[in-house]
Amino acid sequence: MPHALKIDQIATAINARLEGDGDFVVTRLTHPAHVSSDSDLALATDAALLPVAVESGVKAVVLAEGATVPAGVFQAVLYVSRPRYARSKLTALFAETIVVPMGIHPSAVVEPSARIGAKVAIGPLVYVGAEAVIGDGSVLHPQVYIGPKAEIGPDALLHSGVKIGAGVKIGARAICHFNCSIGADGFSFVTPEPGSHELAKATGAVTATNQHLCRIASLGGVVIGDDVEIGANTSIDNGTIVPTRIGNGTKIDNQVQIGHNVVVGENVMMCGRVGIAGSAEIGNRVVLGGAVGVADHVKVGDDSVAIAMSGIAGNIPPKSFVGGAPARPRNKLIEEQFNISRLKSLKEKVETLMKRVEQLEQGGKSA
Amino acid sequence: MPHALKIDQIATAINARLEGDGDFVVTRLTHPAHVSSDSDLALATDAALLPVAVESGVKAVVLAEGATVPAGVFQAVLYVSRPRYARSKLTALFAETIVVPMGIHPSAVVEPSARIGAKVAIGPLVYVGAEAVIGDGSVLHPQVYIGPKAEIGPDALLHSGVKIGAGVKIGARAICHFNCSIGADGFSFVTPEPGSHELAKATGAVTATNQHLCRIASLGGVVIGDDVEIGANTSIDNGTIVPTRIGNGTKIDNQVQIGHNVVVGENVMMCGRVGIAGSAEIGNRVVLGGAVGVADHVKVGDDSVAIAMSGIAGNIPPKSFVGGAPARPRNKLIEEQFNISRLKSLKEKVETLMKRVEQLEQGGKSA
Amino acid sequence: MPHALKIDQIATAINARLEGDGDFVVTRLTHPAHVSSDSDLALATDAALLPVAVESGVKAVVLAEGATVPAGVFQAVLYVSRPRYARSKLTALFAETIVVPMGIHPSAVVEPSARIGAKVAIGPLVYVGAEAVIGDGSVLHPQVYIGPKAEIGPDALLHSGVKIGAGVKIGARAICHFNCSIGADGFSFVTPEPGSHELAKATGAVTATNQHLCRIASLGGVVIGDDVEIGANTSIDNGTIVPTRIGNGTKIDNQVQIGHNVVVGENVMMCGRVGIAGSAEIGNRVVLGGAVGVADHVKVGDDSVAIAMSGIAGNIPPKSFVGGAPARPRNKLIEEQFNISRLKSLKEKVETLMKRVEQLEQGGKSA
Repeated sequence: MPHALKIDQIATAINARLEGDGDFVVTRLTHPAHVSSDSDLALATDAALLPVAVESGVKAVVLAEGATVPAGVFQAVLYVSRPRYARSKLTALFAETIVVPMGIHPSAVVEPSARIGAKVAIGPLVYVGAEAVIGDGSVLHPQVYIGPKAEIGPDALLHSGVKIGAGVKIGARAICHFNCSIGADGFSFVTPEPGSHELAKATGAVTATNQHLCRIASLGGVVIGDDVEIGANTSIDNGTIVPTRIGNGTKIDNQVQIGHNVVVGENVMMCGRVGIAGSAEIGNRVVLGGAVGVADHVKVGDDSVAIAMSGIAGNIPPKSFVGGAPARPRNKLIEEQFNISRLKSLKEKVETLMKRVEQLEQGGKSA
Repeated sequence: MPHALKIDQIATAINARLEGDGDFVVTRLTHPAHVSSDSDLALATDAALLPVAVESGVKAVVLAEGATVPAGVFQAVLYVSRPRYARSKLTALFAETIVVPMGIHPSAVVEPSARIGAKVAIGPLVYVGAEAVIGDGSVLHPQVYIGPKAEIGPDALLHSGVKIGAGVKIGARAICHFNCSIGADGFSFVTPEPGSHELAKATGAVTATNQHLCRIASLGGVVIGDDVEIGANTSIDNGTIVPTRIGNGTKIDNQVQIGHNVVVGENVMMCGRVGIAGSAEIGNRVVLGGAVGVADHVKVGDDSVAIAMSGIAGNIPPKSFVGGAPARPRNKLIEEQFNISRLKSLKEKVETLMKRVEQLEQGGKSA
Repeated sequence: MPHALKIDQIATAINARLEGDGDFVVTRLTHPAHVSSDSDLALATDAALLPVAVESGVKAVVLAEGATVPAGVFQAVLYVSRPRYARSKLTALFAETIVVPMGIHPSAVVEPSARIGAKVAIGPLVYVGAEAVIGDGSVLHPQVYIGPKAEIGPDALLHSGVKIGAGVKIGARAICHFNCSIGADGFSFVTPEPGSHELAKATGAVTATNQHLCRIASLGGVVIGDDVEIGANTSIDNGTIVPTRIGNGTKIDNQVQIGHNVVVGENVMMCGRVGIAGSAEIGNRVVLGGAVGVADHVKVGDDSVAIAMSGIAGNIPPKSFVGGAPARPRNKLIEEQFNISRLKSLKEKVETLMKRVEQLEQGGKSA
């Protein structure tokens, strides 16, 4: 039993109002439909879940402030004013850490010139390259790769299969999930003469053929701030001559693609499958929904929000709320979608009008 | 030569009608344009491929029931009534298994408390965490990672680079492809006050700034049923307090993203690049085409089919056939696309009408 | 200091016109806003960056032919006629190679029957399967996996975590980035009776349920030509009975999905998150923007260009320039988008017309 907390301790930790028995001991947080033990604490902040919790026989619940419960049903109740925020503190109390023993596992390969900080755990089958720096308190799970001269941490948590390229710099308290790639070369190719895609953009037609694709090397690396979390199977590429940058506090979901030279601000959220093309700039606190695309060299203003599957093809100002591809103000998108759905009716109106006008014209003639 | 089968054995195995020499020995299945040996069996169930097969000099073919062949051209012909289904049985006959020797390779790192079943093969450079359970007959290819307390198999087949998180449960006969991630933490963050994206959805405008993103930990794990196949570089995240679930018999392609708390039914098919946002529910036997997105908390009814690149933004009932983003009934989508393509002509009609009405009005006045 | 080049050597190597001191020594290529040393060479081919370069105090710059500089500001200036192409040669001069020592690292596991060429570097924790062939001069970074009978190189560069499936063939000078998957099984399943998705396409409605999904095995492997580059976390699947093919010189970005039996031509460019469904054919020199999807069995003609997020649902002829989903000629797409944005105004015109016609009709009646 990794966690056993008295509910009055929980109340204090999450800033909740407690009613009932403060000595009640909780060992697990769960959903009202998954109660299985007398020491469960059920999350029923959604009003529809309160009857489920009552039915379940659970002895302790978390409810939204304002909910009313029948007397005597629960032994202890925690009331919270912003349930989603309470989840953050609650789940933190019950999260289990996977232990990787401190020191370097004998199966790991660490180049002698690497500098390993204090209280670092380097798990089995990890590779750490020459002159890499692993900050104090960092944990490298099995099969991580750290390229030469990369600098990580302190207190980084790198899950299995994470690959950090040569020279990449990642700040404090980074969390990187399974198999993400940070610091692969950018996708940057050029044809000796202007390429088909360059001319097509300029002229509207394909007038050239790309006979030879020449590689532009990536010398710029990646620099990632503090408190950044990066999802599983996500890729962030090296810049060309200056680094690709991710600001402090930014959170990136799985399957995201961030191209070379991109600059991402602070406290940005990018949901799964987002793609940011080369040299785009994403402002501070921007929120990009799932599968949003941002075109190369585009600037997305601070605090902008893009709904899922938006394609941001041109610059957008701060605090924009956009959707669609190409992305446009979300209210305009909804209006357009509504108008499209009524096109059939509009067509019919026009057909009817044509007949009526024809009759008027004939009436005019016949008159 | 790993496979050599008499064609009458093949006929029985795949339930085909045989004409010709039942003793003909087949060593390879191939395309009519790639015939290179006298023991090839060419798949020519597509009518256009029959002349190619004739031309190739191949001695044995598989044809669709009803095809007519010139006498004396082939030594043996197999007729099948549902060619695509026949492919399943035929390719199974000729598939080669990559052998990983039973036992634990000396370069693998298996924690002493892990429980390894009978006839398990643990390949080179694999890691198996504390208290993990590997079911009988499972095969772990090189460089697989199994987190602590994960439970796999029996008869699982995990390809190189597969990462299975702590506590994840995967049923019998799972096939997981290169570098997929099962059981990374969900992308779940919250701001102390309502966030810009929350308010934007509610009000239609960005009226807040996300100063601080607080992490919600993932305690729920992932539970995957029997006979599930998961593609390369695909990610399935842990639930928050209850597991993310994938039902029996479901097949998931490469580069798919499945968020926390998602519940996927049985016998579902998800094509490449699909993304399912947190807490969505995908019914049984649903088919999602390539790059389909499903928004968070959305319910997709049983047996629904979504064409590639659909964005399912709201609940859809069972047996829906949808397309577009936001997804709508596919017939409506086609009608709308047709109407859009005719907008130019509609505009012209309206311009003409305006002139005619103007003339009528002037005629009326002048009258 | 890994690189120190006299600027007249650079001029010759990149075919630039030099003005100033040919003996000036350059040690680093950088952006005008990142100058930090007297031996920096600043790339200011973009006119807006010239004042930044002047301000920076940098002593040497690369400018676009035709730019005018104040006398005496720089010690040496390189003029180039096609700046983006010059970047290719310039960055190559300054790129650092990550050294993996030749030979087989003691922690690598190489099956005895594998054939390892001359001057091959096999890094730590790599696995090379039975009968695999590694061509001369190839470099396998830590934690690479090479399946049995795969053939790679010569002069291949495989980054950490790359997985090459059994029997896959990759030509000379391949570059494969972190965690890409080449040669996983195709996503190919069939129902004994026609499936819901098959019938939905044919009839427009869901009329069947997929009770049982039968696997079609992938026997065909993958064959990749020379000079191909493949991005991080990208997946290319095995063909069914013939290989999936990628032509010489083709460049594929991160997070791309290429399905079974796909045939990709030569010198193709695929940007991040592209998805190509099974059996599609992509012609030579095609350029696919980010997140473009191509439906199964579709043929994309040579030299075609698709803008980001296009969904190519049917065959397109050579030199097409397309956008949208379903993809259509890009000029038509722009016209349609314009017409959609004017729908509100069109609706209003129709409303006005209806009132005017009503008045005319009433006028007629009242007359």
